[in-house]
Amino acid sequence: MISIAVLGCGRIGRMHAANIAAHPRAELALVYDVHAPSSRALAQVYGVGEAASAEEIFASASIDAVLVATSTDTHADYIERAVAAGKPVLCEKPIDLDLARVNRCAEAIKGSDTPVQLGFNRRFDPGHRAAHDAVRAGEIGDLHQVIISSRDPELPPRAYLESAGGLLRDMTIHDFDLARFMLDEEPQEVFAIVEALIDPRLGAELDEVDTAMIVLRTAGGKQCHINNSRTAVYGYDQRVELLGSRGMLLSGNRKGHELRRFSAQATGVQAPYLYFFVERYREAFEAEITAFVDCIERGTAPEVGFEDGRRALILAEAAYKSMAERRFVHVDEIE
Amino acid sequence: MISIAVLGCGRIGRMHAANIAAHPRAELALVYDVHAPSSRALAQVYGVGEAASAEEIFASASIDAVLVATSTDTHADYIERAVAAGKPVLCEKPIDLDLARVNRCAEAIKGSDTPVQLGFNRRFDPGHRAAHDAVRAGEIGDLHQVIISSRDPELPPRAYLESAGGLLRDMTIHDFDLARFMLDEEPQEVFAIVEALIDPRLGAELDEVDTAMIVLRTAGGKQCHINNSRTAVYGYDQRVELLGSRGMLLSGNRKGHELRRFSAQATGVQAPYLYFFVERYREAFEAEITAFVDCIERGTAPEVGFEDGRRALILAEAAYKSMAERRFVHVDEIE
Amino acid sequence: MISIAVLGCGRIGRMHAANIAAHPRAELALVYDVHAPSSRALAQVYGVGEAASAEEIFASASIDAVLVATSTDTHADYIERAVAAGKPVLCEKPIDLDLARVNRCAEAIKGSDTPVQLGFNRRFDPGHRAAHDAVRAGEIGDLHQVIISSRDPELPPRAYLESAGGLLRDMTIHDFDLARFMLDEEPQEVFAIVEALIDPRLGAELDEVDTAMIVLRTAGGKQCHINNSRTAVYGYDQRVELLGSRGMLLSGNRKGHELRRFSAQATGVQAPYLYFFVERYREAFEAEITAFVDCIERGTAPEVGFEDGRRALILAEAAYKSMAERRFVHVDEIE
Amino acid sequence: MISIAVLGCGRIGRMHAANIAAHPRAELALVYDVHAPSSRALAQVYGVGEAASAEEIFASASIDAVLVATSTDTHADYIERAVAAGKPVLCEKPIDLDLARVNRCAEAIKGSDTPVQLGFNRRFDPGHRAAHDAVRAGEIGDLHQVIISSRDPELPPRAYLESAGGLLRDMTIHDFDLARFMLDEEPQEVFAIVEALIDPRLGAELDEVDTAMIVLRTAGGKQCHINNSRTAVYGYDQRVELLGSRGMLLSGNRKGHELRRFSAQATGVQAPYLYFFVERYREAFEAEITAFVDCIERGTAPEVGFEDGRRALILAEAAYKSMAERRFVHVDEIE
Repeated sequence: MISIAVLGCGRIGRMHAANIAAHPRAELALVYDVHAPSSRALAQVYGVGEAASAEEIFASASIDAVLVATSTDTHADYIERAVAAGKPVLCEKPIDLDLARVNRCAEAIKGSDTPVQLGFNRRFDPGHRAAHDAVRAGEIGDLHQVIISSRDPELPPRAYLESAGGLLRDMTIHDFDLARFMLDEEPQEVFAIVEALIDPRLGAELDEVDTAMIVLRTAGGKQCHINNSRTAVYGYDQRVELLGSRGMLLSGNRKGHELRRFSAQATGVQAPYLYFFVERYREAFEAEITAFVDCIERGTAPEVGFEDGRRALILAEAAYKSMAERRFVHVDEIE
Repeated sequence: MISIAVLGCGRIGRMHAANIAAHPRAELALVYDVHAPSSRALAQVYGVGEAASAEEIFASASIDAVLVATSTDTHADYIERAVAAGKPVLCEKPIDLDLARVNRCAEAIKGSDTPVQLGFNRRFDPGHRAAHDAVRAGEIGDLHQVIISSRDPELPPRAYLESAGGLLRDMTIHDFDLARFMLDEEPQEVFAIVEALIDPRLGAELDEVDTAMIVLRTAGGKQCHINNSRTAVYGYDQRVELLGSRGMLLSGNRKGHELRRFSAQATGVQAPYLYFFVERYREAFEAEITAFVDCIERGTAPEVGFEDGRRALILAEAAYKSMAERRFVHVDEIE
Repeated sequence: MISIAVLGCGRIGRMHAANIAAHPRAELALVYDVHAPSSRALAQVYGVGEAASAEEIFASASIDAVLVATSTDTHADYIERAVAAGKPVLCEKPIDLDLARVNRCAEAIKGSDTPVQLGFNRRFDPGHRAAHDAVRAGEIGDLHQVIISSRDPELPPRAYLESAGGLLRDMTIHDFDLARFMLDEEPQEVFAIVEALIDPRLGAELDEVDTAMIVLRTAGGKQCHINNSRTAVYGYDQRVELLGSRGMLLSGNRKGHELRRFSAQATGVQAPYLYFFVERYREAFEAEITAFVDCIERGTAPEVGFEDGRRALILAEAAYKSMAERRFVHVDEIE
Repeated sequence: MISIAVLGCGRIGRMHAANIAAHPRAELALVYDVHAPSSRALAQVYGVGEAASAEEIFASASIDAVLVATSTDTHADYIERAVAAGKPVLCEKPIDLDLARVNRCAEAIKGSDTPVQLGFNRRFDPGHRAAHDAVRAGEIGDLHQVIISSRDPELPPRAYLESAGGLLRDMTIHDFDLARFMLDEEPQEVFAIVEALIDPRLGAELDEVDTAMIVLRTAGGKQCHINNSRTAVYGYDQRVELLGSRGMLLSGNRKGHELRRFSAQATGVQAPYLYFFVERYREAFEAEITAFVDCIERGTAPEVGFEDGRRALILAEAAYKSMAERRFVHVDEIE
């Protein structure tokens, strides 16, 4: 059994804690949150210990690994401390909102073989994974185009948006990673346009946006389109389409159940999509823990690691530059 | 070009006339209806001749074949006259509501090689046909079960019901034929229950029903279920399901278009099914004419002939007997 | 927290134990199996106690309720002992294969208000439940027809079949209950035909069958069709169709993921259905535990109780009689 | 009856001729092709006259209107002659490959009220039209994003590509028009990337491409993505997706029939999409003729006219400029 401590006991930390507790090869060992009542409450649910500080976790000989689900500005620091302590770490995305900080973190952990897994959960979604595997197995021949539709069910609270780092670093970063996962070549050029169409006050008051369209191009000319919206009233919408020389793949969404209704007005009426990421990517979050346990047990590199987090952020930075300059931006202009 | 005369210029006759006129290897030559204004109107639409009597058609040397879409009580007579005149005939179902009359007709045309094709259009539906062909090609292994769901969009007018011969002879007869088409063995036993659930007055006033469930069994034990309803508010519903040892086939319905709608209440909302048989089986009716022309040009037997019409009626008679005696009835009890 | 003991540590007992352990308002307290290594293994997984006998469980003051997942021939006895001990019991179906034994059990527990919940899990499937609720809410008007397609992915082992009590008591009994759940009137008449089409040796050697078609009729004339097969190679197939005067409902199946594949040969190619009941009815089994906990906490009657188990068995007996006598059998002939 | 002459008797001209001949309010009156055997063959099929020259058609008092399906380089000229003759004209797209020529044509016909309808057939597709109407009726609230996936089943012959004018003017021009049809604001900015991924020799030998991704932006910030490919092996793929503040609409494709296949490997396996535009847009081509007849009979402006053809070409020109300069291009830079 891999003994895992959870840092950060907010919504995502609690979800991960539940998945660790239920995992056949992992056990939840310690929890910590800067807000003590949060860690206390979570510790009681699972009858596990509550750390008085993050340091207690990194220093504990009985802790095999850590899961970091704290606020974004602490991620890079905790990654460095986990690696210094030789404890494999699964860290929520993004590594940091500032690429310079990410690069310093990369420098700090260089040469270590302690696994650092990034929380790009979508790579573990059964449908997305099956699509990826089919492409790699040659099922659709040469891959030509990738189309990612990624839409939140509703605008997050104003307070969240104020500290999230901007749509492209907070939300699209998942799609940049998914694009890299699906493509068999690194995206090199980025074009992006963004708008505040859902709530125009976002633009006026927060310099934030809620709607985006992006185009990526790899060195070999493969094309990828991403569209984002902060409001899909029909539920969290997460689709990936892959077009190749010998076929197409569409990875779609789940509904709460498989009932279809037929009336004088309509046929095939189905339930809305599952509301949000905890429900939509439930299996993905579970598989993410399994992958983390696997890489610890086997001593292998994580399936999705620090450099993946860094490259997704570089694409976000290139997208912001493209948006400002209204032109195709090469990633080399960012690095 | 095969020169075809149409007898009967009601709704179905007019539809067949249009298909013949548009057919690349057939031409509409003469039309006739006992109600002269009907034949005159149709003759004018296509600029073709109007026969003063059915006899004129059977006697005409320039007519290669006839299509009979008159009232049911004239079918057997016209089949006999067409065969006597050596003119291939495509006759709408049923041959007659009375099995004794059908048997006399069979006797009358015995030995002739003039093609008599029965208007069981569903055998020519592209989806149903592809299902049939897949079964025969062994795609689903041994066929075990057939499930036919066949529902009209709404109750026909009272006047229609009064002369239609009863639900099982008028509507289910198509499904009995479809069951025989799909099964690779002849159904031998029949169980049926019927109700007037949509309009209970049908039962009280017309001794008619609107809802039925039927079970058929072949000599080899293969099973078939048919369900019928005279009211599917979501559109004309015509499905066939085939279960075999190595797979399943589902032949379904078309909608007017392929738009799906997504809202806060529902996903995948589609248009109602095509309203009724002229729309739903458009391609089937066209293919039926092609099959008729083929059998005339090639001198082959029709794909669906007189005996198919007779056997479907026998199954209907067995179903009525089962309904009355509340037991499994063998077709040998009818013949 | 409701403290629950599990009797029977085979596949189904272990699944229930996991669901109880993960339930927010229940705790797994004790486990027992006549085969001690089975209970020991399960006890270790959850760190719970292992009872030396069933009696220890019924006598324990710290046990609030019991879940019975033992072999069928012990169900009635355990229900009687649980009721005698005043412990609410959730018992797997069927109560017994012998209606006389079930009736004696009914007599034995008569007058007690200790909850006895029957393990008809399908009533708790989110899709089937939503269909049921929509019918009761009047969404499809008057209910006219119910069609249940229920197919196992493959034949169970010979040893299982030898003691299962026959297809209609072992497998169809779920569908009889589902029919009763969906219909708003009690089915009164039953017609059934059965065959050994998948493996003809079943018939010759075990007097068992693998393929069935059934028709039920309520007092008010509502109709229900059930079809069963022991081999659906495309996965565990569990569908319910409900036709009413104002619409239709179709509750369908889940696949492992929502990937669709498109090639030169085909479009919309999806994964096989989830393999079997543990996967297909996962949410239903979880909701079943919640319903059990609810009825204990609230002191309400179970949503599906002893009499439901008895009535489903009566329908199975009527179906066997129909099959033998090839006629419609009234349930009054059985009771 | 509106008497229509067809100029151009190639594949598309023949299809239009058939639709005119079958139309209840139109009649095919004369046909003409620069290649006399082509017009002769078509004239014989419908028993209509064969014009010796285009001039004969424009001069004929018995011709009410003309349909132009000749080679692209003659379109502008025939439009001018039709307008000069006061004959309503339905002209295949594009007006011309050269915007300057289109502008001269615009000048030439300025002030005339003779209807000039452009052959943007997709506006008449029942699904696309229903989507458009739903947006205009406010069904999805404010429109935010449009995503058009438009893929040919296979690369056209080399000879076709040599004279087609380039992917964006030949194929994408339909999508530019569809974007304008769906959006309720004029697109103002265009970004495009293109590649020769299917056949790299296209790029080397013809300076042609086969794969494209485009982003459009309206003045109000609404976004549109178009993706194109010359090879969708699963059939002609024509989809439109519309995202708004209160819902989403997806207009999809038709298959040859509605059979779904289920096996040990897969579920829901459907037939490939209809192969190409004649089949996929059959109803659209028919409705296009009806719209043409309507505007003649009612004296109204065509639903899709000359200026629509011109604006689509401007978007194509802007896309070519964007592709060359790798930046967002405003349409004002083209006009």
